Amino acid sequence: MPRLRTLSDLGEGRLIDRIARAAGRLDRSGVVLGIGDDAAILRLRAREDWVTSTDATVENVHFRWSEQAASSVGRRALVSNLSDLAAMGARPLGFTLALAAPPDLALDRFDGLVRGLVREARTHGCAWVGGNLARADQTSLVISIFGAVPRGRFLPRKGLRSGDRLFVTGSLGAASLARAAYESAGRRIRHVPVPRLAAGRALLGLPGFAACIDISDGLLSDLGHLLEGGALGAALDSDRLPLPRGFGARCRALGADPLALALAGGEDYELLFGLRRRAAAGFSAAALTRRLGVAVTEIGEVTSTPGVTGVPKVASFLHY
Amino acid sequence: MPRLRTLSDLGEGRLIDRIARAAGRLDRSGVVLGIGDDAAILRLRAREDWVTSTDATVENVHFRWSEQAASSVGRRALVSNLSDLAAMGARPLGFTLALAAPPDLALDRFDGLVRGLVREARTHGCAWVGGNLARADQTSLVISIFGAVPRGRFLPRKGLRSGDRLFVTGSLGAASLARAAYESAGRRIRHVPVPRLAAGRALLGLPGFAACIDISDGLLSDLGHLLEGGALGAALDSDRLPLPRGFGARCRALGADPLALALAGGEDYELLFGLRRRAAAGFSAAALTRRLGVAVTEIGEVTSTPGVTGVPKVASFLHY
Repeated sequence: MPRLRTLSDLGEGRLIDRIARAAGRLDRSGVVLGIGDDAAILRLRAREDWVTSTDATVENVHFRWSEQAASSVGRRALVSNLSDLAAMGARPLGFTLALAAPPDLALDRFDGLVRGLVREARTHGCAWVGGNLARADQTSLVISIFGAVPRGRFLPRKGLRSGDRLFVTGSLGAASLARAAYESAGRRIRHVPVPRLAAGRALLGLPGFAACIDISDGLLSDLGHLLEGGALGAALDSDRLPLPRGFGARCRALGADPLALALAGGEDYELLFGLRRRAAAGFSAAALTRRLGVAVTEIGEVTSTPGVTGVPKVASFLHY
Repeated sequence: MPRLRTLSDLGEGRLIDRIARAAGRLDRSGVVLGIGDDAAILRLRAREDWVTSTDATVENVHFRWSEQAASSVGRRALVSNLSDLAAMGARPLGFTLALAAPPDLALDRFDGLVRGLVREARTHGCAWVGGNLARADQTSLVISIFGAVPRGRFLPRKGLRSGDRLFVTGSLGAASLARAAYESAGRRIRHVPVPRLAAGRALLGLPGFAACIDISDGLLSDLGHLLEGGALGAALDSDRLPLPRGFGARCRALGADPLALALAGGEDYELLFGLRRRAAAGFSAAALTRRLGVAVTEIGEVTSTPGVTGVPKVASFLHY
C-alpha cells in the first residue's frame, strides 16, 4: 500500500497550484487580479461600499477531524464568514484563506478542505482570491471575506428600541443537535448551515427595519449584542421558537434539552432582526417569508427593562 | 507578588474592548464602520480598485517569545502585510487581525502585540477595522490588509523581459543578521523592517516599469517569482548588492556569510523591481533614489537563459 501523502510531500508551491486550479473554476466577476501576485485586486460596482469580516476555525476548538469530513470543515468555515456578510445585507465578492497546518497533514484532508470551500463559494458566487500557507502544530483556517453594500447602507447591530418585534429566519438548534449526536452517539456531523444572504439583502430595503445580527454563538448570546449591552431587554415566547422538524424527539433520544440547544447552541447562522412595532404589524408571517425568501418567525419583543424573559436560563456553549 | 494576568482572566469581550480602545486612536478616514459589528465597512475614493493580502505569523515558526519583544512581533506581522501593499503600489486603508492564542497567554504579551500593531499602523495611516479571537495551543496572528490603487493600475509580478535591469530599494540582510545574532549569541532582535509604501506608489508612475515584488522570502527566492517560473534568468553582480553599514564585519563576528544572508535571508521587505533597459539608462541612481524616496541600487539584468549567475549558490532559509 502506498504511503499516505502529506502536505510536506508537495511543498508550498504545488499546494498553491492546487488551490489556484480549484479556485479557477469559481465565478470571478469583480476580480481584477486573483491568486498568484503579492495581493489580490477587486473592483466594486458604482456607488458601493466594501464589507469585510474575518473568522477563525481551529482544530480541536471549532472542529475535530474525527467529527466530520474535511469538506464539511471547509464548507462550515466559509459559511460562518458568508453569514457575517448576510448580517450586513452584503453581496459576496471573494475570500482569502490563511491555512496553518502541520507538515504531516494528510493531503486528502487538504484536498477535502479545498473542495468544501470551493463548493460553498460556488453556491454563493464568491471568488477565492488569495491566501497564505504556514506551518503550525494545529490546523486552523482563517478566512477573510469581502462583499459589497449599496453606498451608505447596511444592517447595523445597533438600532433596537423598546416595543420593536424580534424575528428569526429558518430554524434554531440543528447545528448543536448534530454536535450532540456526535458527542453522545459518535454520529458524524453532516449538517451544514445555510448563510442567509438573500434574506439579508432583502432586509436592506424593508420598511421599519431596526437591527440585525447573525446567530453564530447562540440566540441568547447574540440577542445580547443587539440589546445595546444590556440597556434594553427582551420578552421572548419560547413556544414560538422555530425548531427543525422532529427536533424534540431527536433531542430527547440523545438526552438533550431542545430549548437549551435552540437558545444557546450556536452555529445556526440564522438572522435575528428587529422591526418597529408598526411595521411588524403590517406584515403577515407569510408576507415576510415571501420577501426574505426563507421562513421568518416572530419570537418576541424588545422591552425597556433589561434582561430576557419568557425562556429558561441556559448555559452558553461558547468556544472561547 | 500578584499573579500574572492572562487572556482568560479578561475574556473575549474585554480583550476586544482593549483592542477597540487602542484602534480608536488610529486614522479612520475611509472607514465607514469599524470594530463592533458583524463586519467592517470601508469606502474608496473615486476610481480606485481594492487591494487585499493576508499573511500569518506563527509562534515558534516565524517568531519566539524569547527572541524579541511582543510589540516587535506585532510590528513585524503588520510590516509583512504592508509590504505586500507596497509591492502593488497601493496606499494602505485598514487591516483585520485574527489572533489565536492559548488562554494562559500573559496579558502583557497581548498588550505588547496590540501596541506594536497600533504603532506600525499609525506610521502608515492604516486603520484597525476588525478581527477575531480564538483559542489555540500556539499563538498566531493572521492579518488581512486592505488598500487602494488607481483603477486598473498596479505593480504586477509578471512583465519582465530579457535585457530589463533589476533594482532593489534600501539594503539586504539586516533582518537575517538580527536573527543570526539571536541564534548564535542570544541577542534579542530589535530590527523592524520598513515597508516601502511610498516607493511602491512612485513606481506606479515610472516610465519603463516592468515588474515588482517585495523581498519577503529572500532575494533569490523572490527573484525566482519574477522570472516567470524559470523561463527567464538573471545575471546579478554580487559586488553591487546593497548591504547595511558594517554588515560584513558584523556577519564575520558571528561566523555568518554576508552574501548568504543578503541573498537568501528574507524578511527584508525591500522592493525588487525591473525597468526596461532604455528607461533604466535614462535614470541615474540618484534620480531613482529621489523619485522613490529611498536608496535604489541596480543589481543586475534579466537574461533569456534560465538560471541566476554572478552570485554564489546559497541555501534558502524558508519557513515552510
